[in-house]
Amino acid sequence: MNLPSKITICEVGLRDGMQNEPRLFTTEEKVSIANRLIDAGFKVIELGSFMSPKAVPQMANTDEVYRALGKVDGVELRALVANKKGVERAIECGCKKVKLNVSASKAHNLANINMTPEESVSKFKESVELALVNSLEISGSISMPFGSPWEGEIKLEEVEDIVEAYLSLGIEEISLSDASGMAIPNQVYSMCTSMREKYPQVKWWLHFHNTRGLAVANILSAMQAGITNFDSSLAGLGGCPFVPGAAGNVSTEDVVHMLDEMGIETGIDLERTIAIGKEIQEMVEGGTDSYILKAGRSKDLVR
Amino acid sequence: MNLPSKITICEVGLRDGMQNEPRLFTTEEKVSIANRLIDAGFKVIELGSFMSPKAVPQMANTDEVYRALGKVDGVELRALVANKKGVERAIECGCKKVKLNVSASKAHNLANINMTPEESVSKFKESVELALVNSLEISGSISMPFGSPWEGEIKLEEVEDIVEAYLSLGIEEISLSDASGMAIPNQVYSMCTSMREKYPQVKWWLHFHNTRGLAVANILSAMQAGITNFDSSLAGLGGCPFVPGAAGNVSTEDVVHMLDEMGIETGIDLERTIAIGKEIQEMVEGGTDSYILKAGRSKDLVR
Repeated sequence: MNLPSKITICEVGLRDGMQNEPRLFTTEEKVSIANRLIDAGFKVIELGSFMSPKAVPQMANTDEVYRALGKVDGVELRALVANKKGVERAIECGCKKVKLNVSASKAHNLANINMTPEESVSKFKESVELALVNSLEISGSISMPFGSPWEGEIKLEEVEDIVEAYLSLGIEEISLSDASGMAIPNQVYSMCTSMREKYPQVKWWLHFHNTRGLAVANILSAMQAGITNFDSSLAGLGGCPFVPGAAGNVSTEDVVHMLDEMGIETGIDLERTIAIGKEIQEMVEGGTDSYILKAGRSKDLVR
Repeated sequence: MNLPSKITICEVGLRDGMQNEPRLFTTEEKVSIANRLIDAGFKVIELGSFMSPKAVPQMANTDEVYRALGKVDGVELRALVANKKGVERAIECGCKKVKLNVSASKAHNLANINMTPEESVSKFKESVELALVNSLEISGSISMPFGSPWEGEIKLEEVEDIVEAYLSLGIEEISLSDASGMAIPNQVYSMCTSMREKYPQVKWWLHFHNTRGLAVANILSAMQAGITNFDSSLAGLGGCPFVPGAAGNVSTEDVVHMLDEMGIETGIDLERTIAIGKEIQEMVEGGTDSYILKAGRSKDLVR
């Protein structure tokens, strides 16, 4: 089994997790969680997003969180932005890394904004320029490349067109985000293999939701295709935007536990992460989807 | 990604699932579920066990279930037995396939019965002879080969010793059963590869619990090592004998959904299976662990 020796995890609970929870977390709570994540060894954290506070009230205090946390050496604190306004907010509060996002669903894009996904990306030009002039790093995300609730299958060529649109803006760090939980292991292996071959200059991230229980198997498949960067969420915080009540982001504890047991280095302290996850789980309603928080590590079972 | 084109699933909800539920299912309920499973295309079903009714009251009506169901052409209806008494009950009620089980944990075996696992298997001789004389098929199971709550790691050589003890009794169908949910994908790949190479005459079954969220990834790894027979349980019915409240058997709906989407043939109708799983889920307390029962199939999401 061909596997990488080292994996980087981006903890997205503070953004994609909390964004899907009814509870609003205060700046103090978010900063405390972020600091504990940093102590537990996380080197990449998605701290929030700069969207309209009306549309995403859970992320309204992202600017404050960045200001309160300040610069942390050796840790990338990234945020999601939708446009130039978001980049402006990022610059103002000291955020040094932003991520753009576009849906791979042509039907979705055409219905909402009368643009194809590539046209949407080309509109990001002013955001990219503003970020680069201000020494912000900028990356791009493609949601639902493995399937969309609008048209079902997304063709590989359609995803490639979006990758090329990002590349033409100078963005070479790209995330493939299965927000609808439709990715299937052999499809993930095949798409990741093909993307890495065709675009060797790209730093890839994979973001899986556990909607249909396949997130961990998809991570395993992506690792076999050479992917070494994955998003995951504390306690499995979050949900599915398309299926109310379904599971959300894959749980960080579950992913780190698997990698630890497989002998793959993450630099993350699992025990500390479990402790943070347990506290978060008590803070949100309706429980979350994390096996390790329920069952403990295998080694804890041994008498 | 090297994968088989066809997988056989043994539905174990009626045995390993129900055995871990406080609710006692009646003979009529079990027969009705079994008949619906057969209609849905299952060709192998673990229908119950012939244990002491005091020790496992959930399985006390297994004899009645076999009598009520009768012979079903083309469908293997297997039962778990512990000893010669179990084989006698199997013969009497018309069961045609039995499965023995031993724990791979030497510490567990020595503490309980002062025998090593291989010694336990050698004591099965009279059970095997009685079964074969009466034209019953007989298979063997090894629980916790991937790790045990007693000693933690189980060495490959220890598992091989048990396999060889089974082979010396003429048993060439062997199940590796991760009842404690401690198996890890690369370990599964490596053990399955090694076992298939060393014992090419054996028909292997793999049985995973989803205790730590790794069952589906372990199935994927075992398939990559050439394994084509897997146990799973309707609605994820069951539990973990070592961690109260933790998840149990991997859900049949989740496994069949993955295989369907991967283009791997199972002969099972997923829609019918989902319908049976939903009913069972309503019959037991505390819910069960099945993603597809919560989220539906990916294709059902497409507008």
